[in-house]
Amino acid sequence: MELARIAFQEIQENYTYSLQYSTTEGNVELRRAFLEFLRKDGIKAELEEIVITTASQQGLDLVAKTFLDPGDVVYIELPSYLGAIQAFRAFEAELVGITLEEDGMDLERLREQIQKGRAQGKNPKLIYVIPDFQNPAGICWSEEKRAELLKIAKEEDLLVVEDAPYRALRFAGEEVPSLKAMDREGRVVFLFTLSKILAPGLRLAALVGAEEIVNKVVAVKQATDLCTPALTQALALRFLREHDFEAHIERLRSCYREKRNAMIAALERYMPEGVLWTRPEGGLFLWVTLPPGLDTEKMLPKALERKVAYVSGSPFFVDGTGHNTMRLSFAIATLEQIDEGIRRLAEVIKEELAALPSSVSA
Amino acid sequence: MELARIAFQEIQENYTYSLQYSTTEGNVELRRAFLEFLRKDGIKAELEEIVITTASQQGLDLVAKTFLDPGDVVYIELPSYLGAIQAFRAFEAELVGITLEEDGMDLERLREQIQKGRAQGKNPKLIYVIPDFQNPAGICWSEEKRAELLKIAKEEDLLVVEDAPYRALRFAGEEVPSLKAMDREGRVVFLFTLSKILAPGLRLAALVGAEEIVNKVVAVKQATDLCTPALTQALALRFLREHDFEAHIERLRSCYREKRNAMIAALERYMPEGVLWTRPEGGLFLWVTLPPGLDTEKMLPKALERKVAYVSGSPFFVDGTGHNTMRLSFAIATLEQIDEGIRRLAEVIKEELAALPSSVSA
Repeated sequence: MELARIAFQEIQENYTYSLQYSTTEGNVELRRAFLEFLRKDGIKAELEEIVITTASQQGLDLVAKTFLDPGDVVYIELPSYLGAIQAFRAFEAELVGITLEEDGMDLERLREQIQKGRAQGKNPKLIYVIPDFQNPAGICWSEEKRAELLKIAKEEDLLVVEDAPYRALRFAGEEVPSLKAMDREGRVVFLFTLSKILAPGLRLAALVGAEEIVNKVVAVKQATDLCTPALTQALALRFLREHDFEAHIERLRSCYREKRNAMIAALERYMPEGVLWTRPEGGLFLWVTLPPGLDTEKMLPKALERKVAYVSGSPFFVDGTGHNTMRLSFAIATLEQIDEGIRRLAEVIKEELAALPSSVSA
Repeated sequence: MELARIAFQEIQENYTYSLQYSTTEGNVELRRAFLEFLRKDGIKAELEEIVITTASQQGLDLVAKTFLDPGDVVYIELPSYLGAIQAFRAFEAELVGITLEEDGMDLERLREQIQKGRAQGKNPKLIYVIPDFQNPAGICWSEEKRAELLKIAKEEDLLVVEDAPYRALRFAGEEVPSLKAMDREGRVVFLFTLSKILAPGLRLAALVGAEEIVNKVVAVKQATDLCTPALTQALALRFLREHDFEAHIERLRSCYREKRNAMIAALERYMPEGVLWTRPEGGLFLWVTLPPGLDTEKMLPKALERKVAYVSGSPFFVDGTGHNTMRLSFAIATLEQIDEGIRRLAEVIKEELAALPSSVSA
């Protein structure tokens, strides 16, 4: 493992730095390296507009801690990322879920909900989205919807948090610009992470936003953990400098493309009628919707008996729906395991369908 | 540097673990190693009673996030650690400072303040203390005051946060048991860290408390950062396993003892009458009180001109006092630098004293 040699050299040559306190903003050279990477993706930001975080989960926690007062309203995709739901709930925000369509949020519904909230005397504060290969749904927002979301955010003076852990992992389809790249007003907070493209164990990510926003977040971060570990920052920096990071990501993309294709092929081969799934153009997840009446949470023990696992969809919905949905990941399994796993899962689903009262399955 | 070899081996042999997600509670073996270390110090705790944190600053943040509602009262030493003040203020706690005497807080005053707070309809919630070689004051609480503090906490049903970053660094005097070791009711939350005894750059610490408390903190930590980096945890564990950690700490103790002695000798040699200082039995800091009328914040630029630095005392006081105090650290400077630094600092103080109006200096 290349990182082993890097860790040895870094500590050997640079321990007075790597084993000491870092600044709250994070390693300057690593921030520069991140900015350069993001610049290729159309995001222009300066050193004062980025802060290193201990993975994106801390970015979410810091955004919540910095901007949310109890009762503030956060608009969130339905379904959305569990960790974000938890981070916002920890600061007692009200979460309003907006249905996700194939090309992004139902923006008419978003407008309605914002206005309804204001009419009720509530305080709409931010919109949280994962526009690229969403976790859990795997979908990618269209450019039109992105532009429209920014327009709504401007009209309603809301902050937008763009969580982009899978953005670099596009393996099919056309590139779509990030909200941050389209943002002309400094109202988008962009969360970038190495967890899916280098190693989650490093817990390294960054928050990119307007200088005023970043300054506030840095002050809050200081009281939260003083600084992110200098060592992991230094290791990541060495890796980015000494390796062809673009080629590394290209390898990841082609690996995940192959796995996604295998999973879709298996779904087509084995699944009974009435089961639907997304065809993600990137990321790690595929979202499956079963016929109404099936409950993926109740079904899970039966799947586990046959040694196949998935994540039940319901916890991703802040409104308590989604009981007939599930998230499948094609990240870790081999091609053979993917085929066999989907075959077993299809068997379980067929059995469940057969056991449904005919009034419901009709 | 020994950690370089350890990092190489760890990643080489164990990267599927070290570069992946960890559990929110932290590496089981590292938690066991911490517990074993603490057991020698009289703290008996089980695996369910410890959670790894990203340095003690995160421990403070998690305690605040878990237990403090806006307006809750936190009792804190006067002076106290800046990072704790910031962590509690971030959750809108009211901080009430209690004067620190040579053997710990003025506990009569603490009782009065708690009763006064209750009479005013406030919600006293926790007491935050650094009983060993306090930052910034360098003093160590007596066993009597520790016992009395626990008694007050029990009577008033308050949580006690014991921050113990310097506890292992005793280099003189008699051992005094920690509050946690004396705690019979599970009301003490103990913060342990590797920052002062291994390397601050690892950002590794632990929070030890009753299982019920730890469970709450773990749930909050999950929404805060999911987990602390697996890599740094694995490195620390290897270091603890492969080295004589007690001998390592003994070397640190004797090094700091020598430096403390050099600083006290230099203070005795150079300081004018009216300047007072502590004689810490451990830790890294020495606390200096100048004659009234002097302001260490205003004096700092003059000291910096002569290339000697200190930390002004006032920010450590939540009540706005302490303008004539300063914190000196003997951690990093060499013995020669300590002597020369104190000599220069004494010159600056003498000049400031000479410039005082006689009415004030009398």
